[in-house]
Amino acid sequence: MRNDADSLIAEYDAVRRYTVALSEPLSDEDCCVQSMPDASPVKWHLAHTTWFFETFILERFEPGFRPFHPMFRVLFNSYYNGIGEKHPRPQRGMLTRPSLDEVRAYRRNVDERVGRLLPRLMRSEMSGMLRELVELGLQHEQQHQELILTDLKHLLSLNPLAPSYAQRLLEPSGRVSPLTWQHFDAALIEIGHAGGAFCFDNETPRHREFVERFSLASRLVTNGEFLAFVEDGGYDKPALWLSEGWDWVRANQLAHPMYWRPDASGWNEFTLHGLQPLDPERPATHISYFEADAYARWAGARLPTEAEWERAAAGIAMIPETNAPHPSAASAMSGSGLTQLFGAVWQWTSSSYAPYPGYITAAGAIGEYNGKFMVNQYVLRGSSCVTPPKHARITYRNFFPASARWQFTGIRLAKS
Amino acid sequence: MRNDADSLIAEYDAVRRYTVALSEPLSDEDCCVQSMPDASPVKWHLAHTTWFFETFILERFEPGFRPFHPMFRVLFNSYYNGIGEKHPRPQRGMLTRPSLDEVRAYRRNVDERVGRLLPRLMRSEMSGMLRELVELGLQHEQQHQELILTDLKHLLSLNPLAPSYAQRLLEPSGRVSPLTWQHFDAALIEIGHAGGAFCFDNETPRHREFVERFSLASRLVTNGEFLAFVEDGGYDKPALWLSEGWDWVRANQLAHPMYWRPDASGWNEFTLHGLQPLDPERPATHISYFEADAYARWAGARLPTEAEWERAAAGIAMIPETNAPHPSAASAMSGSGLTQLFGAVWQWTSSSYAPYPGYITAAGAIGEYNGKFMVNQYVLRGSSCVTPPKHARITYRNFFPASARWQFTGIRLAKS
Amino acid sequence: MRNDADSLIAEYDAVRRYTVALSEPLSDEDCCVQSMPDASPVKWHLAHTTWFFETFILERFEPGFRPFHPMFRVLFNSYYNGIGEKHPRPQRGMLTRPSLDEVRAYRRNVDERVGRLLPRLMRSEMSGMLRELVELGLQHEQQHQELILTDLKHLLSLNPLAPSYAQRLLEPSGRVSPLTWQHFDAALIEIGHAGGAFCFDNETPRHREFVERFSLASRLVTNGEFLAFVEDGGYDKPALWLSEGWDWVRANQLAHPMYWRPDASGWNEFTLHGLQPLDPERPATHISYFEADAYARWAGARLPTEAEWERAAAGIAMIPETNAPHPSAASAMSGSGLTQLFGAVWQWTSSSYAPYPGYITAAGAIGEYNGKFMVNQYVLRGSSCVTPPKHARITYRNFFPASARWQFTGIRLAKS
Amino acid sequence: MRNDADSLIAEYDAVRRYTVALSEPLSDEDCCVQSMPDASPVKWHLAHTTWFFETFILERFEPGFRPFHPMFRVLFNSYYNGIGEKHPRPQRGMLTRPSLDEVRAYRRNVDERVGRLLPRLMRSEMSGMLRELVELGLQHEQQHQELILTDLKHLLSLNPLAPSYAQRLLEPSGRVSPLTWQHFDAALIEIGHAGGAFCFDNETPRHREFVERFSLASRLVTNGEFLAFVEDGGYDKPALWLSEGWDWVRANQLAHPMYWRPDASGWNEFTLHGLQPLDPERPATHISYFEADAYARWAGARLPTEAEWERAAAGIAMIPETNAPHPSAASAMSGSGLTQLFGAVWQWTSSSYAPYPGYITAAGAIGEYNGKFMVNQYVLRGSSCVTPPKHARITYRNFFPASARWQFTGIRLAKS
Repeated sequence: MRNDADSLIAEYDAVRRYTVALSEPLSDEDCCVQSMPDASPVKWHLAHTTWFFETFILERFEPGFRPFHPMFRVLFNSYYNGIGEKHPRPQRGMLTRPSLDEVRAYRRNVDERVGRLLPRLMRSEMSGMLRELVELGLQHEQQHQELILTDLKHLLSLNPLAPSYAQRLLEPSGRVSPLTWQHFDAALIEIGHAGGAFCFDNETPRHREFVERFSLASRLVTNGEFLAFVEDGGYDKPALWLSEGWDWVRANQLAHPMYWRPDASGWNEFTLHGLQPLDPERPATHISYFEADAYARWAGARLPTEAEWERAAAGIAMIPETNAPHPSAASAMSGSGLTQLFGAVWQWTSSSYAPYPGYITAAGAIGEYNGKFMVNQYVLRGSSCVTPPKHARITYRNFFPASARWQFTGIRLAKS
Repeated sequence: MRNDADSLIAEYDAVRRYTVALSEPLSDEDCCVQSMPDASPVKWHLAHTTWFFETFILERFEPGFRPFHPMFRVLFNSYYNGIGEKHPRPQRGMLTRPSLDEVRAYRRNVDERVGRLLPRLMRSEMSGMLRELVELGLQHEQQHQELILTDLKHLLSLNPLAPSYAQRLLEPSGRVSPLTWQHFDAALIEIGHAGGAFCFDNETPRHREFVERFSLASRLVTNGEFLAFVEDGGYDKPALWLSEGWDWVRANQLAHPMYWRPDASGWNEFTLHGLQPLDPERPATHISYFEADAYARWAGARLPTEAEWERAAAGIAMIPETNAPHPSAASAMSGSGLTQLFGAVWQWTSSSYAPYPGYITAAGAIGEYNGKFMVNQYVLRGSSCVTPPKHARITYRNFFPASARWQFTGIRLAKS
Repeated sequence: MRNDADSLIAEYDAVRRYTVALSEPLSDEDCCVQSMPDASPVKWHLAHTTWFFETFILERFEPGFRPFHPMFRVLFNSYYNGIGEKHPRPQRGMLTRPSLDEVRAYRRNVDERVGRLLPRLMRSEMSGMLRELVELGLQHEQQHQELILTDLKHLLSLNPLAPSYAQRLLEPSGRVSPLTWQHFDAALIEIGHAGGAFCFDNETPRHREFVERFSLASRLVTNGEFLAFVEDGGYDKPALWLSEGWDWVRANQLAHPMYWRPDASGWNEFTLHGLQPLDPERPATHISYFEADAYARWAGARLPTEAEWERAAAGIAMIPETNAPHPSAASAMSGSGLTQLFGAVWQWTSSSYAPYPGYITAAGAIGEYNGKFMVNQYVLRGSSCVTPPKHARITYRNFFPASARWQFTGIRLAKS
Repeated sequence: MRNDADSLIAEYDAVRRYTVALSEPLSDEDCCVQSMPDASPVKWHLAHTTWFFETFILERFEPGFRPFHPMFRVLFNSYYNGIGEKHPRPQRGMLTRPSLDEVRAYRRNVDERVGRLLPRLMRSEMSGMLRELVELGLQHEQQHQELILTDLKHLLSLNPLAPSYAQRLLEPSGRVSPLTWQHFDAALIEIGHAGGAFCFDNETPRHREFVERFSLASRLVTNGEFLAFVEDGGYDKPALWLSEGWDWVRANQLAHPMYWRPDASGWNEFTLHGLQPLDPERPATHISYFEADAYARWAGARLPTEAEWERAAAGIAMIPETNAPHPSAASAMSGSGLTQLFGAVWQWTSSSYAPYPGYITAAGAIGEYNGKFMVNQYVLRGSSCVTPPKHARITYRNFFPASARWQFTGIRLAKS
């Protein structure tokens, strides 16, 4: 991102348009319904990302600020206690009003006001703080772009009609290369963001960690490999599971990944392209931490730590720009390099989500962005097929609870 | 209803059109969302009532029958195990597909096919059975017309914007007459439907019951009267409540009727006209059996039995045709007659919903209509402001669990 | 019970001693544990029945009354809000203190004080009220004598060692007579207690009911008959069940009565004699209302109303005094009379537990004895094998929720 | 522990006797009841620790082994899926049989057989493996010795009589020294057990970690200090809490530590000495991770990592042998040393419980001891007042979920 107002405005416009574009194949009804408390309606995402700019940009910087609608301050606050009251998360799907059209009007109104405000303020002494907040708002919106598709996928999956979001059919993949191992020696390394461009606060400070020697798998675990685990009775063997994972398997009577659907003809997978035959070469996805950990144990391996992952990824020259509603199989590789670090599925690490040494949260409501979630969650690294362009980073720390399955999450193995 | 095909078809058209008319002020989003497992989306009501005709009329009588959509058989089956699989009730709100437009097309398709079928079949030897099924389907649809409005009201009530369904504002009511008591001597009476016109099977057979002497209140309990109970600490005194009712009050931390909303200026009530000041003269509504019973005890009275209610109503010459989104205050009366038996709010009786002596359910899936619900529910008599025209009967037995509050339900007192 | 002090004291001593005798085969541990919120520990029953006399007799009539222990007022109050605070019902099993010995000392202390009080007061003008309260206390204690055994049975049933309470083994029964039907014509009858001896308030007032013609089965449904229902897939056919009953069957994955235990050799039944082969001639017991209703539907019959049951029982000359830890098979009969009305298992009626016309509760805490439970429960008539001697009456109204199974409850069929 | 049979047997006898001694002040009832699914009855602890020796020693090494009772294999298996069926954890309190006397007989029987087996086998080639298993069994039993007291404390706390386990009263403490900070520079250190004596597998392998510079508090947080947090509204300020912690506070309506009891005269604390006035100088205990983290944030500090804690403790010459039912205040210190590392309360670290690099679980059921619990738990370091003598180690890793409060857990602060 260039350091002047024009580039910031261009970036703002691009990100904001992309969000609306994601919702365009959908009906008003598709955008309104909430499928579970963890997921939000598309309309809510459209409004909340707008609320973010209204609250943290317009309310602070616009002279004579008046909110678009006084109740939207409450309705579209996600979790910022510092801002005030919030509509309860499990009730987000009850909001048939405002309508989708009204939310789109809300977006346009805020965009126009931000568009008028930015050129003027970027010439003032507040330009630094303003740019930081706009960049944060855009990165925040990109996170919600990914959630729009994963939350929608969960909603559509509950419909016996198995509707599709993307028209195009999935093509069968060619055979992927055998999994190989890349070795790393013990070393005192540095991980975390070094500054100079945007990052979330949870990626800082850059600091030293000592990493013992380890090996990392060259590619992700495929559907075909995970199917072997299923067919070997993986979901019936307590010895393969963490104790809490085993309780979760039993309580939910699980026997396969979330979107796999067995029928008389074999295994299918629900995708954003509708119900498709399970492609053995594509990466296993919508895998929980519990399942990833059990698979790794079955395979005689383990999950990497986030320091191991970041160390291995540090050699990557460029993050590929992929964007598709379903992850692709690993492409053929020359040599022993690592593939699928980005753009396929997020990769569970064995690292609990915790503050880096010396981590400090920002003052005020913005400080609620990351720090307060640092308990009982596990870090995922890389990015997924639905992570928007330019959003991924080597130091990026995604995080979800160990039982979460509705994100594009999968498995990269490691060994000591 | 006249006994020939023309009148049946006219009736069919009128009832079916009325359902669609009820949904017209609503957006696609309003029609899609389910607010709780007990309530269904408006779109689901539109489809299920159509499914009823498709399943019980077209499938039985239409030569070469093919369903409009094979999955609709499952999606829009409510509770008929005899028909086959059902989409789970708490998941009705997940169906963003089929769209509202597709459901309207489904309605038109079934209506056209029924319209072609009826004239021909009404001349056949099947005309008797057919007429009974059509009448049942229409009465069934009228029940869902009432539910459309009560379920929608519940949904809108969860929205902090307090949206309104009806544009018109509510007018304050004039003072109602003081409550008086009408006396009845002990007698062996007959209750239940005597035949000759449509009734549900639960109203049969007409049979004898002995009723001891009692008195019945001339009108319903008003908001003002119920407010006196609230202000006297009625929700804090266990001695006024059934034991299970008291547990329910405590577990849900209740202090007033469901749609009452206190604010700094006093009491308001959420209505289909939006949030309105509480009108002390209108009948208290959205009252559970537990609340009705506690109020009656506080007032030194009790709820009537359904035999008492039916005995008192038996003298009614004509059932008034009222239809409004909110119940009106009792109109001034001449003499000591009973008012508000119909058209304001359903009246809880102390009678558990049970089969009449000699009651027999129909064979097959139609037999699931009523009988299987005859446990742990209480009978309500009369009708409400949103009961559709021509649907009420003196022998009508409505029923809900003791904690249900989202229907237009209120209190008529009795005394021994 | 004779009307003078001596007989009252003798009665008091006999009932109080019988309670202690029931607990004698048990260890301190057996007496302390609570197996579910609906059941209470034996020690709690021993204390609560004593609390009843301390609270309603000593506290009112003993000069200079001081409680045995101030906290016992709270710990052993069951549900009398009028008396004050109560220890929460699900926490009764947490009371390892006071010890069983201390509770026995509490019993002796209260018994001595009541023993000193009664002779003096029975000569005063308070003798009438006092006798009523003592009689109520003794009948109350007899109710808890039955609960001691049913609650204990539930506790022991949860132990994989299948411990027995009674040493003696069960003998196989001889074949019972075929079930026959006794017919009754329609009639206006009187039911309820006529006065002149003790009854609970819920048996009053005696009043008129009109009963249509019906037939009543000559004996109870046997294990063998119920087994035929099980083997016919009775628990898999929704058409046989009330809707709420079917949900209950599915949610709890039920396939047979509560204490039946299938093993490789066939069906066994957990009893107070330990695990025993299922005796096909003894009455089916520990049957819920839902199961009783489903069985009756499967058998082409129905459950009787309580008015029907009481009418049929009215001809009984004498209630047999049986007392055993498990119900016996019906004995051979001469003629077409009714057997097993008393002393085997309580018989579910289809009557919801409701106040009789004109029913009035007592003032004060004693008024909480019955009335506040008159919702969502069903009346059972007769008595069971563990109902203590002299406790049964033709007008007795027992009541439990439709899903309750831990009492000795079974099925007598009726037909219209 | 010396390396010959005599010392092993002496150690065995001492540990086994100590367990029984802990139960001696208790009644059969106290030993039988389970207060919550997380806690077990004392009787169950007595039996399970015996089951451990029967299963892992006698069954493997005793010629002609026959179990004391075949069902005990199931009843007293805690969580070893590799051994077979387990009695469900929440049902441990239902086992009024076997009696406490029978469990004591079980202990004596196993002790005698182990006593006969050890001298002979310790001369065989199996002596190494045997000693390891016996040592594991004794350390396992010591863990249950601590749980016996914490689980019992929870049970007694639910009794409104506030019974005491220890007769002696608590003396008020003298003023503790002001909290000071001990500083440590950044360093690459080694943590984990170095071998040469017993440790649990989760303490291995010893490995390198890089630790940035930090400071550690000289003593634990006191009741008086935690009370200042309470009185400053600490439980009402979401900004102080992790998001999940805040949800936990609200859902459970918490306003102070678990065993604190406010009354008109001020703050009391339930202890194993009964209800006592809150002593401001003793360490705050029964604090959850959520509370510890919120307190630290309020105090402008943080919790230490386990590497920081172990680094700071590494300088400790000797672990003090304290053993009391309630933690003492910090004693006066010379210089700037660290006190209360052991023998007062376990200290929450910010480290999620995870395998050390290169950690390998044992084969078979013994491998279920630790590894399968390494998710969603936090490591505690040090030991508590009820940790038995000789059980604590500098490398010891205790672990509990973030909401657990019934252990003796408290707070030592750290700063970056």
